Amino acid sequence: MISKNLRVDGHRLVGRIEELAQIGGLEGGGVCRLAFSDEDKQAREKVVRWMTDLGLDIVIDRFGNTVGIRAGQEEGPPVMMGSHIDTVETGGSYDGALGVLAGLEVIETLNDANIGTRYPIAVAFFSNEEGCRFQPDMMGSCVFTGVLSHEEASKAVAPDGTTIADELERREIGGSANPGDLKARAFLELHVEQGPIMEAENLQIGVVEGVQGISWSEINLKGVSNHAGTTPMHLRHDAGFVAAEIATYVRKLARDIGGGQVATVGVIELHPSQINVVADQAKMTVDLRNLDENLLLQAEHKLEQYAAQSAKNEGVDIEISRLARFQPTPFDTGVINLVAKTAENMGFGIKRMSSGAGHDAQILAPSCPTGMIFVPSRGGKSHNIEEYTDPDEIAAGANVLLGVALELAE
Amino acid sequence: MISKNLRVDGHRLVGRIEELAQIGGLEGGGVCRLAFSDEDKQAREKVVRWMTDLGLDIVIDRFGNTVGIRAGQEEGPPVMMGSHIDTVETGGSYDGALGVLAGLEVIETLNDANIGTRYPIAVAFFSNEEGCRFQPDMMGSCVFTGVLSHEEASKAVAPDGTTIADELERREIGGSANPGDLKARAFLELHVEQGPIMEAENLQIGVVEGVQGISWSEINLKGVSNHAGTTPMHLRHDAGFVAAEIATYVRKLARDIGGGQVATVGVIELHPSQINVVADQAKMTVDLRNLDENLLLQAEHKLEQYAAQSAKNEGVDIEISRLARFQPTPFDTGVINLVAKTAENMGFGIKRMSSGAGHDAQILAPSCPTGMIFVPSRGGKSHNIEEYTDPDEIAAGANVLLGVALELAE
Repeated sequence: MISKNLRVDGHRLVGRIEELAQIGGLEGGGVCRLAFSDEDKQAREKVVRWMTDLGLDIVIDRFGNTVGIRAGQEEGPPVMMGSHIDTVETGGSYDGALGVLAGLEVIETLNDANIGTRYPIAVAFFSNEEGCRFQPDMMGSCVFTGVLSHEEASKAVAPDGTTIADELERREIGGSANPGDLKARAFLELHVEQGPIMEAENLQIGVVEGVQGISWSEINLKGVSNHAGTTPMHLRHDAGFVAAEIATYVRKLARDIGGGQVATVGVIELHPSQINVVADQAKMTVDLRNLDENLLLQAEHKLEQYAAQSAKNEGVDIEISRLARFQPTPFDTGVINLVAKTAENMGFGIKRMSSGAGHDAQILAPSCPTGMIFVPSRGGKSHNIEEYTDPDEIAAGANVLLGVALELAE
Repeated sequence: MISKNLRVDGHRLVGRIEELAQIGGLEGGGVCRLAFSDEDKQAREKVVRWMTDLGLDIVIDRFGNTVGIRAGQEEGPPVMMGSHIDTVETGGSYDGALGVLAGLEVIETLNDANIGTRYPIAVAFFSNEEGCRFQPDMMGSCVFTGVLSHEEASKAVAPDGTTIADELERREIGGSANPGDLKARAFLELHVEQGPIMEAENLQIGVVEGVQGISWSEINLKGVSNHAGTTPMHLRHDAGFVAAEIATYVRKLARDIGGGQVATVGVIELHPSQINVVADQAKMTVDLRNLDENLLLQAEHKLEQYAAQSAKNEGVDIEISRLARFQPTPFDTGVINLVAKTAENMGFGIKRMSSGAGHDAQILAPSCPTGMIFVPSRGGKSHNIEEYTDPDEIAAGANVLLGVALELAE
């Protein structure tokens, strides 16, 4: 029962986070460490050196996905912790790195306490999670799990014409393992929330129940341009009015569906965009997200119905096109409950929540029992040089990761 | 009683409209005859020649405002008909020209029938009504009535640095009369509606009760930019949502106030304008118009109240600034009723209405009994090369002008 009172060294973990953030560090704060760049290569070498120092067996697949494995009493797939070490162009120190380096900290804590586990425990980082220079995002975990082939992914082209295949070769990033050869017994990802909820509610641990499904639509409206003074209201076909009405409804839609439904109109563009001219054209976007696929479908349906009716009432033509659609990924109930119980036993305030952003864990989830642990983001900021999480909160997250990993490895 | 059955020669009037439209005529239709341009100068010369041919005494003031006067049995200020002969850059043949050339047609009709009037009758065109190259618009009538001094107006500068004073001198446009020396006994302006109402209701004569007051506002909203996936609805400060809510309300506002109230949101701009980012900034404009100053004030007040409340509910900062404000100009009740009675006696379908656009008549209105007569605009189009009014409708308008002018000159 020694393991129940085992705790990570938060100071050591924060030290590694700060050290890694030097690579690609920006003047004035923040990190730029794009996937497959020189900085990415340097960061990979540093993390692999740490893994080696901790005595881990290193497995690097041809796409650069890297796993350090600590043997268990039995053979077989490891309980895997991990995330990514690439960043967006003006990123922070925590997004991705936290999940990888906390995994190392868990292993070092076990090493220090001389604790063995029944099953192997591993820490992994996946290539190109951010998808900034090469799309799509979460690419490495897709290759790791076989959702995307190594060959297909390597063809991805950057705006300057470079392919991933070029970069893998030039920087000698890939290893010899075949993607897919290594399986995980379970997967755990500690990550910053990247949202404001936990801070607002003063909670330490987010028990992530899954990753929200995403539905992106573009709505194009075509009415008639008219003089704002001489055209009475009942003779108007105002594309701008319909856009405003739909955008107002989108908020109501989120409220009506409730729960974790979020709905955002981030773009409204009117034409000709003049103070005294009724708009003949409007373009707008709608971003809908929900953890429940049925509710997300319901939201899409309600939006389409309302938008069509609003356009019809105004005598405006409407075209709705789907720009992107991802189904929600629920995590494993057993892992979710274990995260919750572990955090509560440690005395942390918890919140069961969904992730609004995409993560490697959602790619791993279909192949093994998977869960995520969130720690707060100050001001809800991420993908931002001001990204920050308090050292105590980092330690809390790593301790929950430790407890859950130990339990799953027994 | 011979005058009651007197009718203009519609064919002759349309002929003059078409001839004048040659000056500055655009390939593919439409007219470009900017104030104080070479084309404006040519058009002035042509109209003055027509005036002279009809035996009128010509008075041109130093700002180029031009009046042709037909003597009456008594001396004194004339009953004045008129409008302007400058156009916007891609204008039509009717806006302005109709009011001037119909005035000439009324005088030629009186000449042909050898009819004398008790008071003089005159036809005028005012400089730079459109205000395209030199602001403000309706400038010539402002100088004519003394609202604006000749000296002040002449200082107006075009984007290329030229002043009106330069143009008046270079093109020898101004005359010797002092603006303000000539007064009108009454003023009548026949004009195309520039809106869709009369066509929609199949009416021939618009009895214009006045020119709407105009209130232009710009609203700037400042919220917080946030991730569309990770930020729950209740923690948002979405500037785009507030803009949409205000724009939706603006339509309701027009309905609530009713009557001739029009309300338009022609501009909505969001920042950063990304599909997955809650907007931190929004800029929008609101155009409110009403013939009744009290109702316009009420509309402004309601808008401000609603906008402030909407912003407050969302936790968004708001700044409302007034970009322009013109009071409504009611026309003379006697003239309004005379226009209505004359048109009805001629068997035309009439509509009492307000003008949503500005006209020289509103500048003349404070100085003498003033009225306007509208004829339909096909498709409501004006300031547009497709501007068109049917010859029968033009003749109808000119006949009403004839009848009203004769009555006022007795």
